[in-house]
Amino acid sequence: MGVMEVAEHARAAMLRISNSSLETRNKTILTIANEIDAERERLKDENAKDVQDASKANLRGSIVKRLELDDPKIDAIIMGLMAVAKLDDPINQTVSALELDHGLELYRVTCPIGVVAAIFESRPDALVQIASLCLKSANAVILKGGKEAMRSNRSLAESIRRSIRRAGKIPEDSVQMIETREEIDTLLKLDKYVDLLLPRGSSSLVNYVKENSRIPVLGHSEGLCHEFVDVDADLDMAVEICYDAKVQNPAPCNAMNTLLVHKDIAEKFLPKLSKRFEHPQVELRGDERTRKILPQTKVATEEDWSTEYLDLILAVRVVNSLEEAIDHINRYSAHHTDGIITKNRIAAKQFLRNVNSAVTLHNASTRFSDGYRFGLGAEVGVSTGKFHARGPVGLEGLVTYKYVVAGNGQVVSTYVGKNPKPFTHKRLNKTWSN
Amino acid sequence: MGVMEVAEHARAAMLRISNSSLETRNKTILTIANEIDAERERLKDENAKDVQDASKANLRGSIVKRLELDDPKIDAIIMGLMAVAKLDDPINQTVSALELDHGLELYRVTCPIGVVAAIFESRPDALVQIASLCLKSANAVILKGGKEAMRSNRSLAESIRRSIRRAGKIPEDSVQMIETREEIDTLLKLDKYVDLLLPRGSSSLVNYVKENSRIPVLGHSEGLCHEFVDVDADLDMAVEICYDAKVQNPAPCNAMNTLLVHKDIAEKFLPKLSKRFEHPQVELRGDERTRKILPQTKVATEEDWSTEYLDLILAVRVVNSLEEAIDHINRYSAHHTDGIITKNRIAAKQFLRNVNSAVTLHNASTRFSDGYRFGLGAEVGVSTGKFHARGPVGLEGLVTYKYVVAGNGQVVSTYVGKNPKPFTHKRLNKTWSN
Repeated sequence: MGVMEVAEHARAAMLRISNSSLETRNKTILTIANEIDAERERLKDENAKDVQDASKANLRGSIVKRLELDDPKIDAIIMGLMAVAKLDDPINQTVSALELDHGLELYRVTCPIGVVAAIFESRPDALVQIASLCLKSANAVILKGGKEAMRSNRSLAESIRRSIRRAGKIPEDSVQMIETREEIDTLLKLDKYVDLLLPRGSSSLVNYVKENSRIPVLGHSEGLCHEFVDVDADLDMAVEICYDAKVQNPAPCNAMNTLLVHKDIAEKFLPKLSKRFEHPQVELRGDERTRKILPQTKVATEEDWSTEYLDLILAVRVVNSLEEAIDHINRYSAHHTDGIITKNRIAAKQFLRNVNSAVTLHNASTRFSDGYRFGLGAEVGVSTGKFHARGPVGLEGLVTYKYVVAGNGQVVSTYVGKNPKPFTHKRLNKTWSN
Repeated sequence: MGVMEVAEHARAAMLRISNSSLETRNKTILTIANEIDAERERLKDENAKDVQDASKANLRGSIVKRLELDDPKIDAIIMGLMAVAKLDDPINQTVSALELDHGLELYRVTCPIGVVAAIFESRPDALVQIASLCLKSANAVILKGGKEAMRSNRSLAESIRRSIRRAGKIPEDSVQMIETREEIDTLLKLDKYVDLLLPRGSSSLVNYVKENSRIPVLGHSEGLCHEFVDVDADLDMAVEICYDAKVQNPAPCNAMNTLLVHKDIAEKFLPKLSKRFEHPQVELRGDERTRKILPQTKVATEEDWSTEYLDLILAVRVVNSLEEAIDHINRYSAHHTDGIITKNRIAAKQFLRNVNSAVTLHNASTRFSDGYRFGLGAEVGVSTGKFHARGPVGLEGLVTYKYVVAGNGQVVSTYVGKNPKPFTHKRLNKTWSN
């Protein structure tokens, strides 16, 4: 089946899944959990072949590790499905209700987006997570996983589609998979069929998707987070926050990439930090003023301010003022997550308001910027765009809203002209159910 | 000054206007009202020259009419400014607050989008409306009006910039104007500088903007609204709603374009409708079944289902079922506004949920789909996209949100690993003020 046909099937499935009850959607998600549990051995066999090929192909150890599906990971997938089934219904929720006139009511109601396409790499568990979140929010989804996980993905997608058939009521084509790289290029052109793209993976993948499609994209190509240690910082607190933001796990997108230090505390702060960064050893790359204080530090070039390390490397720059720190961040940041460390509440407020990022923090590690830690229940992705959803995005990223007007024969001519009837525009405390 | 420089100035102004107080922004908007009142005669003189040129150039009467600024229109501009000054502050509003742990709080706070570019045609009053809404929401704006209103637009933009200088505190370059068509093409490429495009005008203008820019667009290229008269409709009500939706004013985007009629009531309903449409005479274009009942009716071709008339013309089609009506609408509609007329609540619910449009109506005229009638206070535009804002859009269309985390030294390592501290994730009833 060609991509075009897949997209047409998704479009056809979309209307039917959007009409399904919460009960049906939850039952389907729980059926998937049972099915994956029942098919555990087959899944592990298929996964083992993927892992073997990846090892033969000399893929990086971290990629092979993410690819692997062992029993604890399969248990986590099953727990994840059960958690998604427990979430509140994201659709058919009345956001607001307004009486326009007696008997003429306006409701704003959440609804599915329609057809979502997710393009992801390596981790096969991402397939189940995305499929279940789309089922929960009554969207049809087209999945494209990484080539290296092909057999695992096929096995999981088959389990999901079999479960949908078994649970009944929801069309099987609510979840479909495509497999080749060439199909992505076709998919990216189908803006009449696909409403939203969810790319998850390397920044080159995300950038490729963004640059080659007119379809809205929810995602982030990089993190590149900053912490700024202000002149009024508690320096011991600052050292611990920086240590956590860089060392606790340097690989995720919310790890600190660049440290900015106010000039008036740099001489006191940088040696403390350098000491803390001995175990494990963090490679510092500093500007000229940093290197005056820490002469062993490597030189940071212009490129360092915009390079995402995802490793135990930190760019360090001494700045003259809060304003200079804000300017630096607004210029080089990926607009993902940036923090200030200070006891000065006015400085903090200025930073939090003026740094143009999805998440800004005061006296806390950048690593908090995450759907689970933010209490979102399930994370659809992290968005560095300014529209629809920003920062860590939960299920609300997979819904939009529509207006529903309920009348009993009203016409506009009553409310215009010489003797117009006024609108009441009265907030109503009721939900749309019709 | 080149467009690139204008965009850089807007970017620089953006940070300062986003820090202005509501008081400052309102004072500036009221100063503009006074200034335009004081400069009324000069404005009318400049406008008269535009009108004269337009008449000489044989522009359509409706365009010349929209171009004209007489005293009542200038009074309306001034009243509009005063109304915008009275609206609630759209920014710095806490949308939600969550305790992650004791002393670690997460706020979701509204903030300006940044730099907005508005491209509009003909009506010079649109310039003042857009500029005041952007000032209110603390966005910097770049305005490009129609060539035919050049002198009027210049005069208004000068009044606005003079008022900003006089009121002080907000940078003058928060409002800038560009004038040539070539500059639009450059502007559309500046996705690093401009965050949102607001095109207002003909569908060819809006489509041009959408097709030639990667910048998000808030707007609609056309209306193409439908009403469906169900088998269970109150036929007299249906006639009156259809009359209002088509005749009350056929020019706006929310007028009915296509009427769908259930086959089982078509023979009774269509003659009634045809009679009502005699004064003023509405030209009907019908499918075969319509023409069997109303033999005088012109033939509707495939093209008619997707042509926006903006005139006293109506395409009419007889359908077999509710489902066929929904399919027709989802296929041909501009996803702006579509309605059903029926006494059957289950049919209504199916229609309202399954029609994939920003606004769906039950037993009411499509003409209600409008920011003023929806009680939005001020209308930024009508959006047929599915993201950010949908349908008639008020000031909220000019704001986004950011997450603010307020801590006192928390690090992630406390909450992960062998003995992780649990998050509290407790809803807080407080606003972010720091």
